[in-house]
Amino acid sequence: MVQQRFQRTPQLNGDDVDAKRKEIHAYFHTTLDRYERLFDTLRNENAYYKKPITLRHPLIFYLGHTATFFINKLILAGLIAERINPKMESMFAVGVDEMSWDDLDISHYEWPAVEAVYAYRNNMRNVVDKLIRDLPLTLPITWESPWWAILMGIEHERIHLETSSVLIRQHAIEYVQPSTAWEPCRKSGTAPQNKLITVAAGHVQVGKNKTEQEYYGWDNEYGCHSAEISTFQASQYLVSNQEFLAFVEANGYTTENYWEEEGRSWQKYAGARHPTFWIKQNSEWRLRLMTEEILMPWDWPVEVNYHEAKAFCNWKTTTSGQPVRLPTEDEWYRLYDTANLTEVLQNEPAVGNLHLDYYASSCPVNEFPQGEFYDIVGNVWQWTETPTYPFEGFDVYPYYDDFTTPTFDNQHNLIKGGSWIACGNESLKSARYAFRRHFFQHAGFRYVVTDTPATVQSSNYETDKLLSEYGEFHYGDVYFDVPNFPKTLAEIAIAAMADKPARTALDLGCASGRSTFELAHHFDHVTGIDFSARFIGQGVQLAEQGVLRYTLTDEGDLVSYKERTLKGLGLDSVKHKVAFYQGDACNLKSIFTAYDLILAANLIDRLYDPAKLLTSIHTRLNTGGLLMITSPYTWLTEHTKKEAWIGGFKRDGENLTTLDGLKEILGPHFKLIQGPQPVPFVIRETKRKFQHTLAETTIWEKIS
Amino acid sequence: MVQQRFQRTPQLNGDDVDAKRKEIHAYFHTTLDRYERLFDTLRNENAYYKKPITLRHPLIFYLGHTATFFINKLILAGLIAERINPKMESMFAVGVDEMSWDDLDISHYEWPAVEAVYAYRNNMRNVVDKLIRDLPLTLPITWESPWWAILMGIEHERIHLETSSVLIRQHAIEYVQPSTAWEPCRKSGTAPQNKLITVAAGHVQVGKNKTEQEYYGWDNEYGCHSAEISTFQASQYLVSNQEFLAFVEANGYTTENYWEEEGRSWQKYAGARHPTFWIKQNSEWRLRLMTEEILMPWDWPVEVNYHEAKAFCNWKTTTSGQPVRLPTEDEWYRLYDTANLTEVLQNEPAVGNLHLDYYASSCPVNEFPQGEFYDIVGNVWQWTETPTYPFEGFDVYPYYDDFTTPTFDNQHNLIKGGSWIACGNESLKSARYAFRRHFFQHAGFRYVVTDTPATVQSSNYETDKLLSEYGEFHYGDVYFDVPNFPKTLAEIAIAAMADKPARTALDLGCASGRSTFELAHHFDHVTGIDFSARFIGQGVQLAEQGVLRYTLTDEGDLVSYKERTLKGLGLDSVKHKVAFYQGDACNLKSIFTAYDLILAANLIDRLYDPAKLLTSIHTRLNTGGLLMITSPYTWLTEHTKKEAWIGGFKRDGENLTTLDGLKEILGPHFKLIQGPQPVPFVIRETKRKFQHTLAETTIWEKIS
Repeated sequence: MVQQRFQRTPQLNGDDVDAKRKEIHAYFHTTLDRYERLFDTLRNENAYYKKPITLRHPLIFYLGHTATFFINKLILAGLIAERINPKMESMFAVGVDEMSWDDLDISHYEWPAVEAVYAYRNNMRNVVDKLIRDLPLTLPITWESPWWAILMGIEHERIHLETSSVLIRQHAIEYVQPSTAWEPCRKSGTAPQNKLITVAAGHVQVGKNKTEQEYYGWDNEYGCHSAEISTFQASQYLVSNQEFLAFVEANGYTTENYWEEEGRSWQKYAGARHPTFWIKQNSEWRLRLMTEEILMPWDWPVEVNYHEAKAFCNWKTTTSGQPVRLPTEDEWYRLYDTANLTEVLQNEPAVGNLHLDYYASSCPVNEFPQGEFYDIVGNVWQWTETPTYPFEGFDVYPYYDDFTTPTFDNQHNLIKGGSWIACGNESLKSARYAFRRHFFQHAGFRYVVTDTPATVQSSNYETDKLLSEYGEFHYGDVYFDVPNFPKTLAEIAIAAMADKPARTALDLGCASGRSTFELAHHFDHVTGIDFSARFIGQGVQLAEQGVLRYTLTDEGDLVSYKERTLKGLGLDSVKHKVAFYQGDACNLKSIFTAYDLILAANLIDRLYDPAKLLTSIHTRLNTGGLLMITSPYTWLTEHTKKEAWIGGFKRDGENLTTLDGLKEILGPHFKLIQGPQPVPFVIRETKRKFQHTLAETTIWEKIS
Repeated sequence: MVQQRFQRTPQLNGDDVDAKRKEIHAYFHTTLDRYERLFDTLRNENAYYKKPITLRHPLIFYLGHTATFFINKLILAGLIAERINPKMESMFAVGVDEMSWDDLDISHYEWPAVEAVYAYRNNMRNVVDKLIRDLPLTLPITWESPWWAILMGIEHERIHLETSSVLIRQHAIEYVQPSTAWEPCRKSGTAPQNKLITVAAGHVQVGKNKTEQEYYGWDNEYGCHSAEISTFQASQYLVSNQEFLAFVEANGYTTENYWEEEGRSWQKYAGARHPTFWIKQNSEWRLRLMTEEILMPWDWPVEVNYHEAKAFCNWKTTTSGQPVRLPTEDEWYRLYDTANLTEVLQNEPAVGNLHLDYYASSCPVNEFPQGEFYDIVGNVWQWTETPTYPFEGFDVYPYYDDFTTPTFDNQHNLIKGGSWIACGNESLKSARYAFRRHFFQHAGFRYVVTDTPATVQSSNYETDKLLSEYGEFHYGDVYFDVPNFPKTLAEIAIAAMADKPARTALDLGCASGRSTFELAHHFDHVTGIDFSARFIGQGVQLAEQGVLRYTLTDEGDLVSYKERTLKGLGLDSVKHKVAFYQGDACNLKSIFTAYDLILAANLIDRLYDPAKLLTSIHTRLNTGGLLMITSPYTWLTEHTKKEAWIGGFKRDGENLTTLDGLKEILGPHFKLIQGPQPVPFVIRETKRKFQHTLAETTIWEKIS
């Protein structure tokens, strides 16, 4: 039993500045102290330099890393001007994640001596200590406050307290030793029989507000998210080693159809036959803890990665005939709410095996009741079905822009609830840590039974350069004071429609779809068609999920992150009036007809046969309907063979402009009623480089 | 002898509008009448459809072409709204020039009947006749006047009067017949002994002013040009058939070293052994005229192309030991001025065999004395050494933008003086017709003896897209109200220099050189260095010739023509203070040192090793000197391998901007004294598409 309660993460508000300064001062030092105590479990020097896991750095790196992190972020925040030790700070800056073979080439690193790293840590402590003593402090502390960087450094250290404990647990046993500061639980017995408990349907609402917040939070906790959760059943206990053994013994690891495709690949690659911390010694199962191996505590939670947890659920679905899966993130919040849990209190022991309040290990799954359940928080982290994703309004914290964003790739699943060593921010309900699905942490799972599929939220930031540029072009910022182009076109079109019937409009070559939405302010229904399914994907995503995210190139490889919502654009109310289709403007299906308006924006000079479209487009318009064409007439042979250009060349010795060509082709069925007028647009390529173009706009009325 | 004097080109000014209208009316009809009379020399229908020259259209095309030209230009000028015969007008529009085999594929053309073409011509006559009667007329007629298009049509017809007469002369003899309207000269005798006459040094000044002009002129006659001509000797007579025979008999055609390289290629390709209109029948030389073959008139001027004339001069140089060549265009003007010639007068016969005033052929070289010389004008055109080029201030006449511009290619040499059939504009001193050097016209030559080399004026319009864009970027128009970028940079640099010594400046990566010139307003000497010899070529050309010309892409293949002069840019006075060198900024010669200012504009993100430059650049600056860097930091691996970027990536986990990188690298020797400030620039790609970029500008003072 850990004797003294480990200090909780500070509240950000309050009236007593001096007390808060002292609280943070203590929080800093106790966190560092505790982290350094973790390394007491290393048996010898060698233990610092031998890698516990082939693809990760040795522990000496992690000892230095959390100190370097402070220095780097404080420099970024402008709180300190000078590095302490540029060489160490270059070595210890990056390498936390699983790396490729090349990155870890040992010849790249000549790690410093352990003592030198402790000396470096102490130098860092002195710098930060002075800062905490002297830096002006106002409450509450917000994202904009310089103190945010200090809290971030401390919480970062707490994360590594846990992840380093996992690495130590993965270290060969001869490199570790017991420590009185890290006493595991000594209780174990027969595992309780698990059972399903029904959770009533309900609403969950999560997300933090940057201006009102109680505790430090990582960027991915901000924004807002709400969901309606259908009723579901959840297992009362976390899955115990006992319960999992049945799966192992049923040849679960080698039965292919229990495994998801990605999980199967992992299982084959790793050759896994049982949970990673299980050890079979003779015919006896034992369990590796951080510093020792013990007889298998069958009533402790099993620790597995997502793939193993998921395979267990699939096996259970097969054997039980019930739809078993992991909970989603939202279902976990529903469990939390149902159990009426609250955050770990400053002066109270945690209600679960959490925050080092009890053990330096797991404990039986039936020790900490929480409502009708056990271990909704604490003991081990719980895998969810949910690949992490940004809440609406997500924003990157500028001094740590790669904390979360690299995990928005549908390959990192959220774990919730915290483990026995989840401290500070990690222990909070709002914490949203995500790991690759094959990673090991002190993590297990609870299962649920429900017919509701686990919805996967869109998490990807569009990083394709062209698509990102178009996302910004259609939905992003204004540059050089040039108004949003697709919105302006829709406004011009709507003004030109005047009192004409406005039932249906076609946005042909809609790209990312902004005009499609904007036209829906005026028309009963608007169809957006583009040749590129990837482009219309942006419109579809906005219509379905209300949000579009993309990265923007700033300079070289540096990017920034953008999010746009239909609501923020004032288009939420019209989303039911639009539909997007993939289609070829030169070979359009016959159902796309009888429109009152057709907009062809920046389309004609990108078609392989513009004349084919233009000579027949009157058949798709109602008489009196309008055709609006805009184009910079940037003819390029890569898009349109020269023979197919409708202008921009000499014919019979005289200049034939594209406008001349349009007049010739459209003349038989149309009257030019407006334009040509130039409408400018700007496409951002980098923070400093833009395309600035004038599209010639003409509006044609169908007369026959 | 031609009986009635063929009407002269009208004067553009005057007081009597009705009389001018009548004069133009008559000029139109007499020109068309005379052109149609030319076709009386065709013996039969077949003569219209058989091609005289493989690579040119048959004469039926030329009969229709001049009529179509009227229609096309009058439509362009907005004077008529409708075509007369779209099909014919498509056939007859283009094809005047020598074509490639593919263009002339006979299957492309099904020529109309001769009668149909005459009917078409009559329809055109009626249209233009009505226009001339009704169109409001004010005097003087200028480029902007709609009447300019009418006069252009008439003068165009007069050009074809001559060129079609050449084609008829090249037609097989069985297709032609004599006509009383086209009576050749019947005089001939022994050629006079040619001799050299000294022409005193003198000044020539030519060029027309758009707002003050006496006669219609083609675009290439406008602008201004002056030159100082050294004394030279010129042959009293044009070279006669007799004089040229000596070259033929000296095996001149097959002696390689008499021929220029291009001429030699032509001679071999064509298998030429004597002038093209010479015919050897048995052992007797005969001469082909337009409609007949006659005994060689030895005292008539020989008719050759440039290559033959040049080979004769080279032979004569060899045999005489004197530097013999053709006159330049300027030397021809000097001859003209020396002889006190004037334009053909309205009511006087021409002073030479010109304007159809005398014969439908050449005549003896000693019939028309002009000052001490003969045939400075008239008889046959005279080849010059001068590839045609635009005078300073050249501008394209918008309704005929490909009259002259395609000849600015250093492959078309000017012919001067006019032939017996050079009428209207062709007969004027100012006429500047140019033909490919291997072409045949009614053209011969006079030679000069001088040590002064024939200077070739720059004629090329830069058509390379990148170079043209940079020409415009540095010296062209303002777009989006963004001030000229290289000029602005020079101004910022000069302001930053304040009272510092301003002896020498280096414009490193000077591209087309605008900043180099602009810095020379402040510095005693400015060196411009660029990796691209093609770019510095633009600066060099401006410094040496004072003018830069380029085409700009408007839309598709359509271009416009631009000219910029140092004088117009206010840079003429500093051109002696600049020098341009090709050089590699990453490997600069040691002589480029001891500068008071180094400007590196939009350079660092285009170098293969920017750090190499930046770590050593302090060695090239005087202490206290300034380094000014601007760049949009558009790092691209095609220019700079990622390992060589100095910013724009994450280093040790943190964003390293290029500015961060500059501070690190320059820190030891420089102090950042100004910036970063964004300076915008715009590069025009087409009439409607632009790059709009913000270059980050920093100024660094060398402190050690």
